[in-house]
Amino acid sequence: MSMRPFTHTITLAEAKTIIDAGITPLMRHETIVLDDARGRVVAADVVSALDVPPFDRASMDGYAVIAADTRGASADAPTPLTMTARVYTGDMPDSVVRPGTCMEIATGAPMPAGADAVVMVEDTSANGDRINVRTAIRVGQNVGPRAADIAIGHTVLREGDVLNASRVGALAAIGAAAVNVWARPSVAILSTGNEIATQGTALAPGQIYDINRYTLSAIVQDHGGIAHPISTARDTLPALHAAIDACLAHDLIIFSGGSSVGERDLILDVVRERGEVRFHGIAVKPGKPTLFGMIEGKPVFGMPGYPSSCLSNAYILLVPVLRRMAHLPLTAPRTMRMPLAARVASTPGRHQFYTVRVENGTAVPAFKASGDITSMSRADGYIEIEAEITEVPAGTEVTVTVF
Amino acid sequence: MSMRPFTHTITLAEAKTIIDAGITPLMRHETIVLDDARGRVVAADVVSALDVPPFDRASMDGYAVIAADTRGASADAPTPLTMTARVYTGDMPDSVVRPGTCMEIATGAPMPAGADAVVMVEDTSANGDRINVRTAIRVGQNVGPRAADIAIGHTVLREGDVLNASRVGALAAIGAAAVNVWARPSVAILSTGNEIATQGTALAPGQIYDINRYTLSAIVQDHGGIAHPISTARDTLPALHAAIDACLAHDLIIFSGGSSVGERDLILDVVRERGEVRFHGIAVKPGKPTLFGMIEGKPVFGMPGYPSSCLSNAYILLVPVLRRMAHLPLTAPRTMRMPLAARVASTPGRHQFYTVRVENGTAVPAFKASGDITSMSRADGYIEIEAEITEVPAGTEVTVTVF
Repeated sequence: MSMRPFTHTITLAEAKTIIDAGITPLMRHETIVLDDARGRVVAADVVSALDVPPFDRASMDGYAVIAADTRGASADAPTPLTMTARVYTGDMPDSVVRPGTCMEIATGAPMPAGADAVVMVEDTSANGDRINVRTAIRVGQNVGPRAADIAIGHTVLREGDVLNASRVGALAAIGAAAVNVWARPSVAILSTGNEIATQGTALAPGQIYDINRYTLSAIVQDHGGIAHPISTARDTLPALHAAIDACLAHDLIIFSGGSSVGERDLILDVVRERGEVRFHGIAVKPGKPTLFGMIEGKPVFGMPGYPSSCLSNAYILLVPVLRRMAHLPLTAPRTMRMPLAARVASTPGRHQFYTVRVENGTAVPAFKASGDITSMSRADGYIEIEAEITEVPAGTEVTVTVF
Repeated sequence: MSMRPFTHTITLAEAKTIIDAGITPLMRHETIVLDDARGRVVAADVVSALDVPPFDRASMDGYAVIAADTRGASADAPTPLTMTARVYTGDMPDSVVRPGTCMEIATGAPMPAGADAVVMVEDTSANGDRINVRTAIRVGQNVGPRAADIAIGHTVLREGDVLNASRVGALAAIGAAAVNVWARPSVAILSTGNEIATQGTALAPGQIYDINRYTLSAIVQDHGGIAHPISTARDTLPALHAAIDACLAHDLIIFSGGSSVGERDLILDVVRERGEVRFHGIAVKPGKPTLFGMIEGKPVFGMPGYPSSCLSNAYILLVPVLRRMAHLPLTAPRTMRMPLAARVASTPGRHQFYTVRVENGTAVPAFKASGDITSMSRADGYIEIEAEITEVPAGTEVTVTVF
């Protein structure tokens, strides 16, 4: 067997269409406690079984009154009322506000029967139990009515809502101790190659450390998945078959390395034997030697072994897949428009992923070479240059996707 | 004791200045394994003890050659070379490329001695061991030189770098199994109030569920902290003193509730007794009854009990504090500029936090009332309206901070 050059590459758009056809949102869901809910996606509409607030309550510190009693009150001619009780938060008042009387009330405390408004403490003066009201107020003033925030039967959250702080708060408001969310995609990550050494051990001649296992795990976690790194497979067919067996317990399988055209690059053969190769080779730079296929219904990526090629393809191809499987919104608002600080040349016919630093509101080219992880670790994000563009002049307004 | 109205509020800018003076980045650091490193902040420059790559390597699949041998080669007049060996990734070639010979080589494999360039497989044809080179190449072509990405002694990461995928990858590249990062601030969260019921239990009359414990925990976790909710304290001085004792094991203390002016709002008294109140009352809407102080060197926030007031103040005041303590960059790029869809009126003299939904590229006002958690859970983010502004007309370009 000799080396097999790429006979055919497809465009990035074609690759994305083929990948899309192989991906569906995961339909598994699970119930988790609120403390673990941050960032998760609601799997079913949540309907409230109670009113929030569950009672009319004071929205200011002051005095619960009958609004009609304050008619004509002013600073010059205050209306005197007799304070008969104090109502604190957590209390249920057991007496009634009658004409000519009032009750001291704290913000959030339940309104006593009979009262229909709250006079702010700032609008009163007190002399023992005699409260002088210095302003006229209307019915309902400074009162938060029962169910004003959430009414019984109200849909508090909808399927697909991402649980940020305020949405977790909305669940807490209705007393929910747990929430039903979409399961996170479980992703098998497997770096192949005889040259891969283990972190923390010395390199033997010809060896390098595994970078892709770590960058891919971080991307998977950043975009709603659970990363399951699997022990590095040697470049033999039996080792790769055994690895596939282990991977099939997961929802998505990502190989890195072994998808180029070298004689020992066997991923292509293994995916072909075990399932179906849907494409092999994309007109992107870096990242051409990329494979996508399906094995027993599970999508399989074969990513380039070169670390920055692997990672740039992860941003362009894998992130949308992860987010779709996880029911997360496809576009996170993490892009910025700014002028390009210096001219960038691009290879004709290849969609280019180009790293930049953000400096003084401009995008400064930060690309080194496709094997260089530092070209990415020193960048703030990337721009994409369409396949037909060969040059982007300095000053062009570009869209930077932030890492 | 009677109710104590706010005699004085300070501006938001004054409040931020006072808070800033009480906050310093945490100087505790810790060593963690790479798998846990995502999102953490590097505590000390990381210098490489090795070259990456550790050897000259092929950057294409093809044949390792002596460039001079290919002089004058073309498709019409190919230069024949004799293939003497194959070099795979992970191998160290044990023979030498001599004039007139070549070795098959895979991308990433170490360059054999004698060779100084790689001819791409696409630029050759093979007939057994006879390889016809159809193009002339220059010295170094398709070779990734040793140390091209990272050289021994090179600073791979700097103190303050946030560990995203590519930076974790850079650590992996140099064989690091662990990394020294700044400790995350440990934040005690305590909701006070006799009216607070436990999630999952039925409400007694006058009770409500605790929302702030959950929204504050989410904000703390979103911005680099570890949330430690502490059992809800009853509104008594001994209970609050005991709670403070428990909180002092943490780096930052956040109370919610109990900072308004009601008779039972005792946080002010407790902070005054145990430490120092630096302000109480800010001219913001919502969120006026907010307290900041110091107890035994630990910053203490007293947040309003009303859930959306508590959360809006968390965004405006707490997020910068958390990020600064955690050594995270103060401005995360999560803002968008867009026109306001409808007029918004604002209270004169109070800096307003106003929730909006993003719809069709416009910011649609989504504010309900300051007690309403749903005014935030249905919004995508917020705009801020300066204290002196009383009206923002429809169509005004506003900055939306995304939740």
